[in-house]
Amino acid sequence: MATEPGYPEDLRDLIEAALAELRFSPAPRTAGLEEAMRYSLLAGGKRVRPVLALATARALGAAPERFLPVAAAIELVHTYSLIHDDLPAMDDDDLRRGKPTSHKQFGEDVAILAGDGLFAEAVRIFCEQPGEPAHVLAALRELSAATGVDGMVGGQYIDVLGEHLDAAGLRELHALKTGRLISASVCVVPILEGTDESETLIYRRFADELGVLFQIIDDILDVTESDERLGKPHGSDERHGKTTYVSLYGLERARELAGESHAKARSALAEAGGDTEDLRRVADYIFTRHE
Amino acid sequence: MATEPGYPEDLRDLIEAALAELRFSPAPRTAGLEEAMRYSLLAGGKRVRPVLALATARALGAAPERFLPVAAAIELVHTYSLIHDDLPAMDDDDLRRGKPTSHKQFGEDVAILAGDGLFAEAVRIFCEQPGEPAHVLAALRELSAATGVDGMVGGQYIDVLGEHLDAAGLRELHALKTGRLISASVCVVPILEGTDESETLIYRRFADELGVLFQIIDDILDVTESDERLGKPHGSDERHGKTTYVSLYGLERARELAGESHAKARSALAEAGGDTEDLRRVADYIFTRHE
Repeated sequence: MATEPGYPEDLRDLIEAALAELRFSPAPRTAGLEEAMRYSLLAGGKRVRPVLALATARALGAAPERFLPVAAAIELVHTYSLIHDDLPAMDDDDLRRGKPTSHKQFGEDVAILAGDGLFAEAVRIFCEQPGEPAHVLAALRELSAATGVDGMVGGQYIDVLGEHLDAAGLRELHALKTGRLISASVCVVPILEGTDESETLIYRRFADELGVLFQIIDDILDVTESDERLGKPHGSDERHGKTTYVSLYGLERARELAGESHAKARSALAEAGGDTEDLRRVADYIFTRHE
Repeated sequence: MATEPGYPEDLRDLIEAALAELRFSPAPRTAGLEEAMRYSLLAGGKRVRPVLALATARALGAAPERFLPVAAAIELVHTYSLIHDDLPAMDDDDLRRGKPTSHKQFGEDVAILAGDGLFAEAVRIFCEQPGEPAHVLAALRELSAATGVDGMVGGQYIDVLGEHLDAAGLRELHALKTGRLISASVCVVPILEGTDESETLIYRRFADELGVLFQIIDDILDVTESDERLGKPHGSDERHGKTTYVSLYGLERARELAGESHAKARSALAEAGGDTEDLRRVADYIFTRHE
């Protein structure tokens, strides 16, 4: 995978090393489960969500290293959602990041449990985040709400229903399915730091817009990129008859919408104090990515 | 369902009412997901795990009502595990508590998401438990560890592997799959109360033994009770070629083991201070239950 000079690779290296070190149990009988969990967890990717958390720490003047537990927990949640999303009863995808999906590699039963296990371990690791316990609890509440019915799982539900959506419905789908976890990846950090509400709101506005941007680009890439570059079969959305930004607005208008969303995210960020350079670089990467 | 005079029905009523009141989102588009979650959550049952939590509160001299958030969270986790356990790729069961299983009623995709949603909402609700934040975090760490690789999900993994197990393997399987969540149902309460370590250990010993007892009885009921009484097809274990206490030891010896386990649980409880009457009644119920 090529290294974009603009992406905060030092933060990606940090989280990559932390994820590689994670172990869940020394028991021999569950070693195969742990192997399946690590197979998906260590399959690479840009680690956008944990890098956002670490970049937010830097923007707030805190050492990113201190936030590795929550950053790792967020990536575990994201990985669990991908494994369940790929299942035959869901999107039924065979490839993810260029490798066989979890159920293709380990069987459907193990894939379900690998997802469940990653979610449970994410919560455990989050509980071990150093800091003021009241702040850690509030941040974990933010993350779990972002992954529940009024978040990621609710968005996946709207997605599998496969009903025809209008523009408002599409925005709601993605705000829940993708947006809230991306938003939480940023917002847990000011919550952990006890940052005041008005400053936290600026970060929330930035992060919400980033979630929208992420999804528009995802929909564009699904029709413009090759399987090899995407690491998964392209045209998957069309095959499933899903409403996307491209199917609803056409490719050119979708590209314009992405540009508007990117500008809004940048403008929210400009209001935040601190060194937001790395957050800006992640926003730029999301806007210009090809995978 | 008949009411056993010995079971702490007042505590069951408390948790039943709290579960019935739970709502996860007002959004119309996810109402179907919420319906599926509530379908399984409100399917009845003795509510052994949350009743254990509330009975432990009573034993420690605290008002059970104060612990309804964690008690509800524990039942949500238990319900999520049942939904995923019943899936076609797992145990492939059609009935649960006398009703069609979640995937039979709503489809496999919605069942997977209903389980995922219950887990996420359980964590959110747990984060809202009133109390000393450091204690709430420690208790949630206990629950999430009990549901992860070195707990429930790890036990389900050993179960689906379906390898022939010796006595030690069988004990490990059930200690993880059933025992740790039952144990956590008791132990989160002294952790929340900041009870000293030696007293907490007594409750942990009681709860660990209760987990063993619960599973031996489960295995016995699977071969001795009718489908109607169990609310699920009996003989399910044998059909899946699973090692059970009955297949390993025979019915009579399994009954003796249950008696020994019950005696050990009672004896651990006798060492605890406080009014442990309700905990004793739950242990007696688990020993003598027919469903």
